[in-house]
Amino acid sequence: MAEERKISMAVVRRLPRYYRYLGELLQKGVNKISSRELSEKMNVTASQIRQDLNNFGGFGQQGYGYNVEYLYEEIGKILGLHQNYKMIIVGVGNLGQAIANSNSFSRRGFKLVGLFDVNPKLIGMSIHGVEVMDVDRMEQFVKENGVEIAILTMPKTRVKETAEKLAQWGIKGLWNFSPVDLFLPENVQVENVHLSHSLMTLAYMISEAKIEEEKERH
Amino acid sequence: MAEERKISMAVVRRLPRYYRYLGELLQKGVNKISSRELSEKMNVTASQIRQDLNNFGGFGQQGYGYNVEYLYEEIGKILGLHQNYKMIIVGVGNLGQAIANSNSFSRRGFKLVGLFDVNPKLIGMSIHGVEVMDVDRMEQFVKENGVEIAILTMPKTRVKETAEKLAQWGIKGLWNFSPVDLFLPENVQVENVHLSHSLMTLAYMISEAKIEEEKERH
Repeated sequence: MAEERKISMAVVRRLPRYYRYLGELLQKGVNKISSRELSEKMNVTASQIRQDLNNFGGFGQQGYGYNVEYLYEEIGKILGLHQNYKMIIVGVGNLGQAIANSNSFSRRGFKLVGLFDVNPKLIGMSIHGVEVMDVDRMEQFVKENGVEIAILTMPKTRVKETAEKLAQWGIKGLWNFSPVDLFLPENVQVENVHLSHSLMTLAYMISEAKIEEEKERH
Repeated sequence: MAEERKISMAVVRRLPRYYRYLGELLQKGVNKISSRELSEKMNVTASQIRQDLNNFGGFGQQGYGYNVEYLYEEIGKILGLHQNYKMIIVGVGNLGQAIANSNSFSRRGFKLVGLFDVNPKLIGMSIHGVEVMDVDRMEQFVKENGVEIAILTMPKTRVKETAEKLAQWGIKGLWNFSPVDLFLPENVQVENVHLSHSLMTLAYMISEAKIEEEKERH
């Protein structure tokens, strides 16, 4: 399976949702599920589900359905969640604190090991048991602790420079929350969360729905 | 143009990025740009850009390029940004506060008019000039002020119930930050921000990059 698993990112982006649903089913003690049942729960067509899961050799058996635990574990492995990732947060404002306080990440193998900021009022504080350090200490910390993921929740103006440094220090992935596109060496993965893009998309959907409503009225 | 503009959501989701880049160009005083130049800046193929923008009748002229301001304005209209949206935030924890404090939304016509929480310590406080109110007052507030968008940054357990009520009260769109899929009447648009999905996608990319590196080593 490891040989031929170039999957499109569109499919990859659907996997966390399967993973979440399957996790919820497991918690409820559900051991097997048909693609039809999963389809109804997730509001995705059964054929989409079968197609998506066939990318990984298909875990279902005709007439039996999917083994929930096995599928959950396998999707977790594909997503790389069987590994543990050491993370730091750069920028401990409201957004950085919100992420630091979230439990849902640590449950999935993402371990927050350090927080960094330039604000002397924040440095020395402890959030969720993790210390806020001066950004001056970041290089040493990243290298000594083998930090793999940096979460960028800092002001936009310093993001590019910081990202480039982090790449040099051996960071494997950046989770970037600022409206800046980062172009980094190939060995550094970047996942952007552009909140304003998401809100604009919502505006589009609302605006389209209004146009449709208008049409129907006439 | 209004007649035939059913665009795929994949294209729609790329529009905010064009919009952001064009806005930056405008600020720099750039008045026209070729698809090739835009392509280099955005790290998207020129043909992708031409295809995307052709969805809207194509704003470019052969050999001249795109008029930046016109394109910016048109994409803004398509996204529905020429309208103003009244928004409330439900759940004023760190994430809710981070959004309340962001300037980038109000610049684009999204006006925050109310904040709601159940925590007596927060009620009465003012964030970015907006008052935090008791959720008990939400129904009246939404109806009286014609609030169109509600941002859900509250604990997961109460999201479904709150979303259903907001839908009844006439909300047009929900921006949902909790890991809960909402199934609401067709006239209510839902945009989900699943942060944990995004982080899992990053884990996938890191994990894939490691596998590739291993392969190259052997």
